[in-house]
Amino acid sequence: MNLHQLTLAALNDHRLFTILDLAGTFAFAISGAVAARDRGLDWFGVVVIAFTVACGGGVLRDLCIGAVPPAGLTDWRYLAVAMTAAWMTVAAGRLVARLAHPVILFDSLGLGLFAVTGAQKAIIYGHGAEVAVLLGVVTAVGGGVTRDVLLTRVPVILQREIYALAALVGASIEVAGERLGWLSSGRTWVALMACFALRYLSLRYKWNLPRPSGSQDNDG
Amino acid sequence: MNLHQLTLAALNDHRLFTILDLAGTFAFAISGAVAARDRGLDWFGVVVIAFTVACGGGVLRDLCIGAVPPAGLTDWRYLAVAMTAAWMTVAAGRLVARLAHPVILFDSLGLGLFAVTGAQKAIIYGHGAEVAVLLGVVTAVGGGVTRDVLLTRVPVILQREIYALAALVGASIEVAGERLGWLSSGRTWVALMACFALRYLSLRYKWNLPRPSGSQDNDG
Amino acid sequence: MNLHQLTLAALNDHRLFTILDLAGTFAFAISGAVAARDRGLDWFGVVVIAFTVACGGGVLRDLCIGAVPPAGLTDWRYLAVAMTAAWMTVAAGRLVARLAHPVILFDSLGLGLFAVTGAQKAIIYGHGAEVAVLLGVVTAVGGGVTRDVLLTRVPVILQREIYALAALVGASIEVAGERLGWLSSGRTWVALMACFALRYLSLRYKWNLPRPSGSQDNDG
Repeated sequence: MNLHQLTLAALNDHRLFTILDLAGTFAFAISGAVAARDRGLDWFGVVVIAFTVACGGGVLRDLCIGAVPPAGLTDWRYLAVAMTAAWMTVAAGRLVARLAHPVILFDSLGLGLFAVTGAQKAIIYGHGAEVAVLLGVVTAVGGGVTRDVLLTRVPVILQREIYALAALVGASIEVAGERLGWLSSGRTWVALMACFALRYLSLRYKWNLPRPSGSQDNDG
Repeated sequence: MNLHQLTLAALNDHRLFTILDLAGTFAFAISGAVAARDRGLDWFGVVVIAFTVACGGGVLRDLCIGAVPPAGLTDWRYLAVAMTAAWMTVAAGRLVARLAHPVILFDSLGLGLFAVTGAQKAIIYGHGAEVAVLLGVVTAVGGGVTRDVLLTRVPVILQREIYALAALVGASIEVAGERLGWLSSGRTWVALMACFALRYLSLRYKWNLPRPSGSQDNDG
Repeated sequence: MNLHQLTLAALNDHRLFTILDLAGTFAFAISGAVAARDRGLDWFGVVVIAFTVACGGGVLRDLCIGAVPPAGLTDWRYLAVAMTAAWMTVAAGRLVARLAHPVILFDSLGLGLFAVTGAQKAIIYGHGAEVAVLLGVVTAVGGGVTRDVLLTRVPVILQREIYALAALVGASIEVAGERLGWLSSGRTWVALMACFALRYLSLRYKWNLPRPSGSQDNDG
């Protein structure tokens, strides 16, 4: 915990970080719980997968910046949020099912939230811009990859979709804004919405990046 | 190693911890070696998988509590125990095959042992009750999940079985007993047997938790 | 960063370590990029997989020895090397395709390089021989296993091939040579070539280790 050198401004960042991080936890937990329920797991399995998916990326981030034990394990609010999300998914199953593609919606939201908070936490711990951007992507992508690996299906990140790129854009805006001195609340919403919009619109309108095999003309 | 503040009582805990942790390593190594052999791996692959399965959960626990390098890598006894278990599985293959479901038996034993030792180590390192319970589950479940991910099959934890719940019960008894001041040997055996019995009996009598999709009546 | 106690000799080791580690990153990034391209990923996915495969083993090693944040995230050269390798794979696709089994070639090279550098870094950080050998294997095997898990196929390490054994031989030579006082450059090339040759020749001439099920006669 090398947090003692935080200034007041950073403390405000820290409070905003916690709120957004819990929101991302909630979003990814819903996404994990729906996927687990659709695979026919029992209710305890649904809670475990929801918690794992919600905290997987954050735990990896915390291990990488030396913030041990990871917040997902020490802060009871993460567990409470994940359990609430899992319970809501199970209890309000018919409501969630009525939403169009709830996994995709909450997965996109969690992607944006974690891209921002992953970058924020690395900055709060005093690391450089490259580490912050990369850990934003790791935090954002970690949950979904963990979910897909545990459910033994090809990770979303590997399909022809804009996924990690959206996280990269969100984390980059957050870090660039911090370096340029933008107000934390302003840059955070821009970064969050940019990542969420890029991911969600790419799914809705089937935007895809070109494949290497298709780009026969050399782009040197 | 921030172990210097250990009292004599904690040192006794520590010795018991080491014995149980090595026993869990042995049990999970057998479970991993049998699974690897059944997939037709060569003898070196059997040793690697046995060691990975046996130490996967513990390494993850040690990374989360900042006990680096993880004991599975620094303490040669873990490697020796895993290699012995792998060798026994290969050498005494026909004997092991005659046992009914040896993977399941040793996996259940390892689950109980690691649920207890994972929680114990977190307590020894001075962490709170929630971290201890969660890391008990992580340690216990980590080995089996690692084995299943490496063998590209759906993790046992995802099937309709009482697996992570048994680990949760074991870790909770251990932590609650420690908080209530029970003698370490007493609480450890109760926790270990509760987890093992719950897991093993649930397999034998096909106990299952209800699935969310089946529970249409709201349990609010 | 407990590097301040480094002597001049160790600093030379450190410089050689960096060069070899970047070479291993390049080799594994090519291997990952080719595999990702063959699965039809878009160009961003190819970069992500190339970077993940190239740095997966090293990140795991750095977490285990407490070198946080891991070098793969803090040192921009790793990212630059991985991106260059991914770009070369895409841009010079037809050239790479003409090489016989480029994934296997670069995978073997990366295996040898990372077996050596993984062991070296553990020694530089002051850990014992067993940790150094094991982390050499972890670093070497981590990239390939990560690639195979993400592409949801059975890890190469599980097939009937000499893979982790080659890494073990390379890491053992490096550590034994360091203990016996061999010059770092000499022992490193011997260790590197031994691992690479063992892996590559075993593939070419289909050397295999015996399987446990086939060895019915007791080898006690």
